[in-house]
Amino acid sequence: MGLYQRWRRLRLPGLHACGLHTVREAAVPTPPHWLVQRLGLFEELWAAHVKRLKSMAQKEHRPIRITLPGGQKVEAVAWNTTPYQLAKQISSTLADTAVAAQVNGEPYDLERPLETDCDLRFLTFDSTEGKAVFWHSSTHVLGAAAEQLLGAILCRGPSTECGFYHDFFLGKERTIRGSELPVLERVCQELAGAAQPFRRLEASQDQLRQLFKDNPFKLRLIEEKVTGPTATVYGCGMLVDLCRGPHVRHTGQIGGLKLLTNSSSVWRSPGAPETLQRVSGISFPTAEELRAWEEWREEAELRDHRRIGKEQELFFFHELSPGSCFFLPRGTRVYNALVTFIRAEYTRRGFSEVKTPTLFSTKLWEVSGHWGHYQEDMFALQPPGPQRDHPTSHPTDTLALKPMNCPAHCLMFAHRPRSWRELPLRLADFGALHRAEASGSLGGLTRLRCFQQDDAHIFCAPDQLEAEIRGCLDFLRSVYAVLGFSFRLALSTRPSGFLGEPCLWDQAEQVLQQALEEFGEPWDLNPGDGAFYGPKIDVHLHDALGRPHQCGTIQLDFQLPLRFDLRYKGQAGALERPVLIHRAVLGSVERMLGVLAESCGGKWPLWLSPLQVVVIPVGPEQEDYAREAQQSLRAAGLVGDLDADSTLTLGRRVRRAQLASYNFQFVVGQKEQSKRTVNIRTRDNRRLGERDLTEAVGRLLELQDTRVPNAEEIF
Amino acid sequence: MGLYQRWRRLRLPGLHACGLHTVREAAVPTPPHWLVQRLGLFEELWAAHVKRLKSMAQKEHRPIRITLPGGQKVEAVAWNTTPYQLAKQISSTLADTAVAAQVNGEPYDLERPLETDCDLRFLTFDSTEGKAVFWHSSTHVLGAAAEQLLGAILCRGPSTECGFYHDFFLGKERTIRGSELPVLERVCQELAGAAQPFRRLEASQDQLRQLFKDNPFKLRLIEEKVTGPTATVYGCGMLVDLCRGPHVRHTGQIGGLKLLTNSSSVWRSPGAPETLQRVSGISFPTAEELRAWEEWREEAELRDHRRIGKEQELFFFHELSPGSCFFLPRGTRVYNALVTFIRAEYTRRGFSEVKTPTLFSTKLWEVSGHWGHYQEDMFALQPPGPQRDHPTSHPTDTLALKPMNCPAHCLMFAHRPRSWRELPLRLADFGALHRAEASGSLGGLTRLRCFQQDDAHIFCAPDQLEAEIRGCLDFLRSVYAVLGFSFRLALSTRPSGFLGEPCLWDQAEQVLQQALEEFGEPWDLNPGDGAFYGPKIDVHLHDALGRPHQCGTIQLDFQLPLRFDLRYKGQAGALERPVLIHRAVLGSVERMLGVLAESCGGKWPLWLSPLQVVVIPVGPEQEDYAREAQQSLRAAGLVGDLDADSTLTLGRRVRRAQLASYNFQFVVGQKEQSKRTVNIRTRDNRRLGERDLTEAVGRLLELQDTRVPNAEEIF
Repeated sequence: MGLYQRWRRLRLPGLHACGLHTVREAAVPTPPHWLVQRLGLFEELWAAHVKRLKSMAQKEHRPIRITLPGGQKVEAVAWNTTPYQLAKQISSTLADTAVAAQVNGEPYDLERPLETDCDLRFLTFDSTEGKAVFWHSSTHVLGAAAEQLLGAILCRGPSTECGFYHDFFLGKERTIRGSELPVLERVCQELAGAAQPFRRLEASQDQLRQLFKDNPFKLRLIEEKVTGPTATVYGCGMLVDLCRGPHVRHTGQIGGLKLLTNSSSVWRSPGAPETLQRVSGISFPTAEELRAWEEWREEAELRDHRRIGKEQELFFFHELSPGSCFFLPRGTRVYNALVTFIRAEYTRRGFSEVKTPTLFSTKLWEVSGHWGHYQEDMFALQPPGPQRDHPTSHPTDTLALKPMNCPAHCLMFAHRPRSWRELPLRLADFGALHRAEASGSLGGLTRLRCFQQDDAHIFCAPDQLEAEIRGCLDFLRSVYAVLGFSFRLALSTRPSGFLGEPCLWDQAEQVLQQALEEFGEPWDLNPGDGAFYGPKIDVHLHDALGRPHQCGTIQLDFQLPLRFDLRYKGQAGALERPVLIHRAVLGSVERMLGVLAESCGGKWPLWLSPLQVVVIPVGPEQEDYAREAQQSLRAAGLVGDLDADSTLTLGRRVRRAQLASYNFQFVVGQKEQSKRTVNIRTRDNRRLGERDLTEAVGRLLELQDTRVPNAEEIF
Repeated sequence: MGLYQRWRRLRLPGLHACGLHTVREAAVPTPPHWLVQRLGLFEELWAAHVKRLKSMAQKEHRPIRITLPGGQKVEAVAWNTTPYQLAKQISSTLADTAVAAQVNGEPYDLERPLETDCDLRFLTFDSTEGKAVFWHSSTHVLGAAAEQLLGAILCRGPSTECGFYHDFFLGKERTIRGSELPVLERVCQELAGAAQPFRRLEASQDQLRQLFKDNPFKLRLIEEKVTGPTATVYGCGMLVDLCRGPHVRHTGQIGGLKLLTNSSSVWRSPGAPETLQRVSGISFPTAEELRAWEEWREEAELRDHRRIGKEQELFFFHELSPGSCFFLPRGTRVYNALVTFIRAEYTRRGFSEVKTPTLFSTKLWEVSGHWGHYQEDMFALQPPGPQRDHPTSHPTDTLALKPMNCPAHCLMFAHRPRSWRELPLRLADFGALHRAEASGSLGGLTRLRCFQQDDAHIFCAPDQLEAEIRGCLDFLRSVYAVLGFSFRLALSTRPSGFLGEPCLWDQAEQVLQQALEEFGEPWDLNPGDGAFYGPKIDVHLHDALGRPHQCGTIQLDFQLPLRFDLRYKGQAGALERPVLIHRAVLGSVERMLGVLAESCGGKWPLWLSPLQVVVIPVGPEQEDYAREAQQSLRAAGLVGDLDADSTLTLGRRVRRAQLASYNFQFVVGQKEQSKRTVNIRTRDNRRLGERDLTEAVGRLLELQDTRVPNAEEIF
């Protein structure tokens, strides 16, 4: 868990997308003439800025009151005191680790004098906002290096979820090569080491155009984005850039920086698109943190589920069925354990499992709307031999493999009259779904053409909606807790082209919001991000490495009940329209299996483990007893393998089992045989000692059935 | 079970296919002229036959020795003594109930004089062969009635598995109407009542042509089938027919006869096909047996799985997915209970469950041979949008939905090198299979386009074959015992066009035979009935009504290992070819669910039951406690429904639950509430009395987990 903790300290989201490249040296040119010109103009502007600031401070030399987090109030001087000065008053650690401030909720440079009474908060690298400032500052360093080393014309340099990139232009013929990254990186590191301060000033539109007269991209940005009389410009070392800020105080705060990938990107100007070069990187306050991240990334690569799937013989892929997974016995065991888990929750939570067909007439998909919107992603076919059909019975419609279960569940709701007494009706289905993903996008278990979901549809009365949403949220929380995932919720409300009655939407969005409030976990609002058929709650889980995945979902649907004309007899006797909730917790079982494999790095918790126990006889004399022990495990439905390879020492075999991630090793020697016991070790090489065989099997069953994450620790 | 025993006495196989029609009266014409002519000729031939017999008996008046079953030998006189006379010597009951004889294994009329020393056996209606003779005799009666009443030109009149039919021609315009059946039936009954003897003689080809000069169908049959100088002709009352026999002694032995259906059939002559009329019926030695059968059939109709499926809300069908079943919550429960049962057996028996894709490139089906032989029954499709595919990655082959799992399991065996240490490798798969059955042949769960099997493929070394076959047979026996089925096995050996080495076949057939012998259950030999790729053991189970179903199978396959070039490293280090066993116990899970529904008549054993317990509060005051009891059941994973309908009396609600086939009713009144008990009744209205709620739930779980057939009796 050392790496995990190191990672938690870093708190980097989504870093798994970053790659690794090895590179060689490149030549270093000298800075171009126009850069010297731009720097001269900036220095002029800066001198004026400093002068203006000083005069403001003298003119308005008045005390102001700053409210710190926690409510503490401190005195300061307008146009003079900076957040950095206040941070130093609080603690030198804070002053050293703060990357920016927030003044009345707005981002603010630490060295920018405060102007009025305000609420002040400090941002550090630990927070998402702090990371964004830090990485955005780092991309200035990268831009400066690209300008100086490559004569690049800079375009954009944002921070991302896991670092930063800079897009720039090197001329129509020139591309950035992977071999150039190490030199560029060294220049970045030098620039960072020089601890150049970030200097902020306001420039008029004329001054901006003058500063960037040699950069057509910036001129276009000034034209499009700068709506007021002035805009912010930052100078940092040899770089001057149009930028809203804020930044770290100086580049010296960037203690570790690594460039990761080179690629091309496109600048969509009103004229012809221009091909730009993109370099991405990551940075940290200290070199040590960078090293920790590099180790973490290596680990993440080791944890690639395709690699684990192959090593543990969980599954494989075959060109004769692209995009579909073959689950080997061990993978099927994990798969079935997941399904069994969800089934148990269904029983507890009043969901009814159903089984619906795979092939449906396209008439169904016309009713549901999939044929209009989703046809390209569906596998459609003509049934063979129409001439064999009895002419008057079923006509031979075109058929399509279902990409979703919802329309089948609507047919099930509609197949006989329904009463309010039956609601909420919660239909769950593990049916195989097929989606014609482009073969280029297929990869491991992440994107498949054939998969199963823990898919359920809740048909309920409008006044049951809130309770059902609360139930769905509770379902999510309890499953993710067992799987060891934290998660974050977001409410997406009506988009511009929404269908249905606005008052229905109002009501539903309110209900969702209410349910989220009561649920008590933090949640975000994504206005306008809902589907056209209803608002939804997005669920982003975070795996054990902190990486985000979208698996579960809770979506309201006002449209399908209309399209299938679903009705139930209400309490008053009139026919009423049910509301439909689509929901899933695991999402695709296949994908979740991949996420779990990576999250646990192949060290499966006992209840999911395809490698629960290996029995190891000390010598050939104990092999019969070892087989008996194995049989006891198997009879109990546990995985019991045997390693009786007498060409290897006991120690080697125990080690081999531990490396293979068997949760437990049952070693049986002469003593164990005579007492019908087993000597138990865990995969972390903890020695649990001698236990009665029957009791050990019973204890394993208990630990399996309760789905504990740490059976090895609490055995 | 009274009906079941009555049925067992009848021992009729496959009667569930017979239908029921209501009919009205029709007019009765007089016999036609040509019939009188034919009868005249037959009488002439008969007089000559009798004369010849008499002269043979006089010329060769010698004693012969007849060996009876059990080895007893009796004296008889050649050309004089008949089997019937010998039957009378044994017992009058045998003489009355015998329908025909077997002489040296060949069927023989009871009244036909014996000619030489021979082994003699008597056939009664109890045996399959006896039923065939009896029903074949009955179809002569039907033919006579059709000739006399309708002026029919007779064509064919065979016995079937559950009765008989007669095909005849009424002219191009005329069809037989359902309303005519009662009159036809009355005529049949009169002819039977007249106790007309069946008279057998040999006629020359000329005489045959003369006898049937007015019947083009018989003339064609004479031309095609009569290869020797003479053929057998039977006369019975006013009917003369070309027929090999044998028959019952006289029509009076047919004590009960019923006509069942009218339909059309086709006579495939070398010229244009001719539409014939078909009337089917059934008959029994006594009117009482007919009545018992009619009761049984009514019961069978009540037990129709489609009816039970609808009444119990187990499943339904929808025109938008013809041939696929929608399993409702209750049906899914039964389905999952079956799968769980088989999974538990897989664990005990060392089978490994795997999951394989549904869609495969037709290249796979070319390798397996399905594309050549089975293409018409497969759903094939082009993946959508080939232009979206990356040109160099997966080519867009035609895909087909798998109709069988075996090729996927062969890919799994082949995906990495295999060693003898891994064998036997038993791969089991519940994957959805699709077969493009003609829509006319679809009906209920019996024939579907989409279904799942408890399908497994065993890859083993040749010397493991016998143990594996024994294991398969034991698997069958133990599952069928739990399901309450008896079964009968048959070994089918190599057909004429078999593929592969004869010595391999010799060995394999011997191994199968050996395994069957050791298994200890009776089995039949079907020489030449195996598949071209290997010998097999057919399994016919008999449900609780005695009806046969073919569900399980054990098939050897020498071809697929060749086609997929499957190899494993043998103990000596050389690559060897595994043998493949296809096997299933339930067969299609869907179909088995239908068979079970009918077999138990909707009164499911507890472990399969979708209607386990209903909780009934005596009054509204106990409703809360009733809900608690219901919750206890559900928390334990049991089906717990609630009937708190206070508009009905307690008695009515108990009765309603029993009629709905709930295994148990938990009645809770004031006393039960205060003591936290439940008052238990069974669906057969046995009163089990007051039990502690927790203990009752525990007992139910125990009875469910042990899969007992009679939980209500042994609670």
